Amino acid sequence: MIPQKVALIIIGNEILNGKTRDANIQTFALKMQEKGYNLAEVRIIPDEKKEIVKTVNEMRKKYFLVCTSGGIGPTHDDITTESVAQAFNIKAEINEEAKQILTAHYKNLNIELNEARLKMATTPHGASLIFNPISKAPGFKMENVYVLAGIPSIFNAMLEEMLRTLPNGIQFYTYTVFTSKTEGQIATELSRIQQSFFKDVLIGSYPKTKENGQFFVEIVIRSTNLQSALLCRQEVEKII
Amino acid sequence: MIPQKVALIIIGNEILNGKTRDANIQTFALKMQEKGYNLAEVRIIPDEKKEIVKTVNEMRKKYFLVCTSGGIGPTHDDITTESVAQAFNIKAEINEEAKQILTAHYKNLNIELNEARLKMATTPHGASLIFNPISKAPGFKMENVYVLAGIPSIFNAMLEEMLRTLPNGIQFYTYTVFTSKTEGQIATELSRIQQSFFKDVLIGSYPKTKENGQFFVEIVIRSTNLQSALLCRQEVEKII
Repeated sequence: MIPQKVALIIIGNEILNGKTRDANIQTFALKMQEKGYNLAEVRIIPDEKKEIVKTVNEMRKKYFLVCTSGGIGPTHDDITTESVAQAFNIKAEINEEAKQILTAHYKNLNIELNEARLKMATTPHGASLIFNPISKAPGFKMENVYVLAGIPSIFNAMLEEMLRTLPNGIQFYTYTVFTSKTEGQIATELSRIQQSFFKDVLIGSYPKTKENGQFFVEIVIRSTNLQSALLCRQEVEKII
Repeated sequence: MIPQKVALIIIGNEILNGKTRDANIQTFALKMQEKGYNLAEVRIIPDEKKEIVKTVNEMRKKYFLVCTSGGIGPTHDDITTESVAQAFNIKAEINEEAKQILTAHYKNLNIELNEARLKMATTPHGASLIFNPISKAPGFKMENVYVLAGIPSIFNAMLEEMLRTLPNGIQFYTYTVFTSKTEGQIATELSRIQQSFFKDVLIGSYPKTKENGQFFVEIVIRSTNLQSALLCRQEVEKII
């Protein structure tokens, strides 16, 4: 049993020019793993229509599902919706359900639903909405492409909405083992263990630094087969 | 004058499965901007040879330079060097200069330079080294592909080495303006300003959240033309 592969596209000049540190990748990675999917690729691309169209089209064909983050607000640089519509060769239009949500929301706040705000009710024709419990302007789903906001608190909320509609995938069993030995000391033995469990366990070895500057190694054992994962962990524990 | 486009490839199952939060993207983004280059794309891909070869080949043709992060240690899952060699269709072999560095280093530490450690002296034939002042095992440069370590402290040190050999690009002038108005309030005017400066200024609008949950908007004005950037900032300050 192999988990389905999924991908994340971060649309964000602010990440690429270093103004903002990404805060969505790890959340997405952990949630997907918890749900039983395999995050196989992340791309960070600029707020440029041509790049978004190309990337969405390449990835929606390659992966079970693709999520985008960012570019669905009311300003001129929010071009994700029109770009995703173009990727599907489908018209972007006012979504009546989204318009109702925004109308009610802005009426409550006593704020005018001006043209810029109304832009946030646009989706490709036929898309279904992903609700936004925080600032109301929804994301949407078009076939296997899920379009989410970029602001971390809203991204997280929309991700929860999205996960609710997604069937469970395949559970991973992950064990982490630490050692103060260096990679150079354990590499040969670790390689031997990986080879003997090549069928269904993936062993990762990650050198890391403590706050005091001391190095240590984190060994991560991952499998969809519980027994193999446990046996492999036993073997790894013998060499550290 | 348009800055050259560069790209970053993070090779890291540990980022994709959420165990580790990336710490290299923002460093790279800021350094590249400071040096006058345009970070145009980041990809995070798994420790899989086929994916690495494909991604490196796609990106080295598309961008002025490509940097990789991760996968050059001594363990079985460190396959970046052999993958980059394969992307260039060139043999990976022991680099004599790298071997000398490691021999001296491990002799100093009174540690055996075993086969696993010697693997870190491998580069594609003809590559030049990128020195590693921290743990000595070097990165390398093969044409426009720079292969760096993944551990943030070592990545940063190698990045500094790499930047020293790189000519200066084109300077960006960046101004940031904050407003407590919402994007919905300023979007129309901001779009008008972007249109009047369409030739050489890029305006980004980023809604953000304070620690107390309050939203605000960060407006970023970027140009390689100082006068345009300043004029545009004046216009933006009128509407916030």
